[in-house]
Amino acid sequence: MKLISFLRGGVASYGAIQGDRVADFGAIAGPDEHDLVAALRLDAIPALAAEAAFDVPVSEIQLLPVVTTPGKIFCVGHNYETHRQETGRAKVGHPSIFTRFADTLTPHGGPIVRPKSSTSLDYEGELAIVIGKGGRHISEADAMSHVAGFACANDASVRDWQWHTQQFTPGKNFPGTGGLGPWLVTPDEIDDLNAVTVTTRLNGQQVQHASLADLIFPLPTIIAYLSGFTPLSPGDLILTGTPGGVGAKREPPLWMKAGDVVEVEITGVGLLSNTVVDEA
Amino acid sequence: MKLISFLRGGVASYGAIQGDRVADFGAIAGPDEHDLVAALRLDAIPALAAEAAFDVPVSEIQLLPVVTTPGKIFCVGHNYETHRQETGRAKVGHPSIFTRFADTLTPHGGPIVRPKSSTSLDYEGELAIVIGKGGRHISEADAMSHVAGFACANDASVRDWQWHTQQFTPGKNFPGTGGLGPWLVTPDEIDDLNAVTVTTRLNGQQVQHASLADLIFPLPTIIAYLSGFTPLSPGDLILTGTPGGVGAKREPPLWMKAGDVVEVEITGVGLLSNTVVDEA
Repeated sequence: MKLISFLRGGVASYGAIQGDRVADFGAIAGPDEHDLVAALRLDAIPALAAEAAFDVPVSEIQLLPVVTTPGKIFCVGHNYETHRQETGRAKVGHPSIFTRFADTLTPHGGPIVRPKSSTSLDYEGELAIVIGKGGRHISEADAMSHVAGFACANDASVRDWQWHTQQFTPGKNFPGTGGLGPWLVTPDEIDDLNAVTVTTRLNGQQVQHASLADLIFPLPTIIAYLSGFTPLSPGDLILTGTPGGVGAKREPPLWMKAGDVVEVEITGVGLLSNTVVDEA
Repeated sequence: MKLISFLRGGVASYGAIQGDRVADFGAIAGPDEHDLVAALRLDAIPALAAEAAFDVPVSEIQLLPVVTTPGKIFCVGHNYETHRQETGRAKVGHPSIFTRFADTLTPHGGPIVRPKSSTSLDYEGELAIVIGKGGRHISEADAMSHVAGFACANDASVRDWQWHTQQFTPGKNFPGTGGLGPWLVTPDEIDDLNAVTVTTRLNGQQVQHASLADLIFPLPTIIAYLSGFTPLSPGDLILTGTPGGVGAKREPPLWMKAGDVVEVEITGVGLLSNTVVDEA
């Protein structure tokens, strides 16, 4: 199942998508199931999916970020060996964790915004996990049972602000820099996570490519580690790291600019496309 | 005015405190003014303060963290020269920014929790700012007009988890480690911010002491910098950095353990006291 959040007639809703048809769960959901995160929290998706019909043409909706109200957004740094090496980072025994605020998210088809205060806007294609079942002190063995599904993400980064100090927060929290979409693919649709590949293209040119098998800290390790210091809740989002090939480490650097089209394609998950615009 | 969030008869509310009397704003507030953050957003405090009487004995309430639903919590690292030097950090041209989640907050009188997974629990006494008026690209000259008030904070840190990698997130986000209280003091109550001192005591022994005049990046600079990369909103919380004297940099290290009483006293603001407990 492919779950989406969207606007329909200007009203925020959510549901499922099949080809060019949408099932509007929000139209039949109870008052407490007002968005996808709430529906995950109430474990309402199976009942809604059983009841809703795919009777809305996709042309009637406008996609929102897959989850619009995640309580926590975690990002993992330097989690592919190719990226660790290009950034000159030391090997570490634990995942490197920084955070995003939800107001940085931008949907499939939405703009990625280059701020007025920087020209060093970079792409970072990544697999995103959405948590379905919350928990604390989750074991690696149990970790994948806490996953609602996967999405494509672009952890777009304002590099000069990221490098103002050792803490990445500023460069990772400009509005309109967190691409997330087009949909959330439930785990049953993916046979072998290790065979999944992440590819980033800038204006059609491949700039990043790796397999999830290349992750330094695999998905269960990340989930277990995070839940070791903070409670995870339904709707929480984890961006699992980007492969080598970022623009900042090219010679000369390859920065994104207005009009550029950046795509993150993840096999079995989908294709996230965004166009870069300058801050108004 | 001293603003508080609290439980009264098990119900979350907010209001003002004067000595041992509380004015319960929540009891007379409109449905959209359900907590202090919402009341700040709606600029409802002046009207509520004019209407409410101080008719509730303080014994009838149980304090909550000053704001319970901040949208964003920013922390500034290494913002006093004494602390920068003891940590061996390089001088930087911008504030070092990391984040907390709201579920780490603990009120005045509440426990600070030492997790099972660590013994290196440290104190960090700090002045906290609560944002009253939101904004983006706020100038330093305008910054202080965006402040709703000040509170005492303890940015208690799980040092081994903080140092797993260069990103501080894990060690700053264990539940029950963000002391915040007892109240929010509105700016009109403080004559001269530069004369304000921050003192931390562990079991009655002074372990940190500094003046806000010692801040490397003063309050307006922090607010302007944050708003340069992210929108600030009413209720957002900024922990402005801790003075030298942290337990981690003592020889031998001074870690907090169950039963310890840690106090953060800020002149003109208040005294935040917490007792350390072990994770259940």
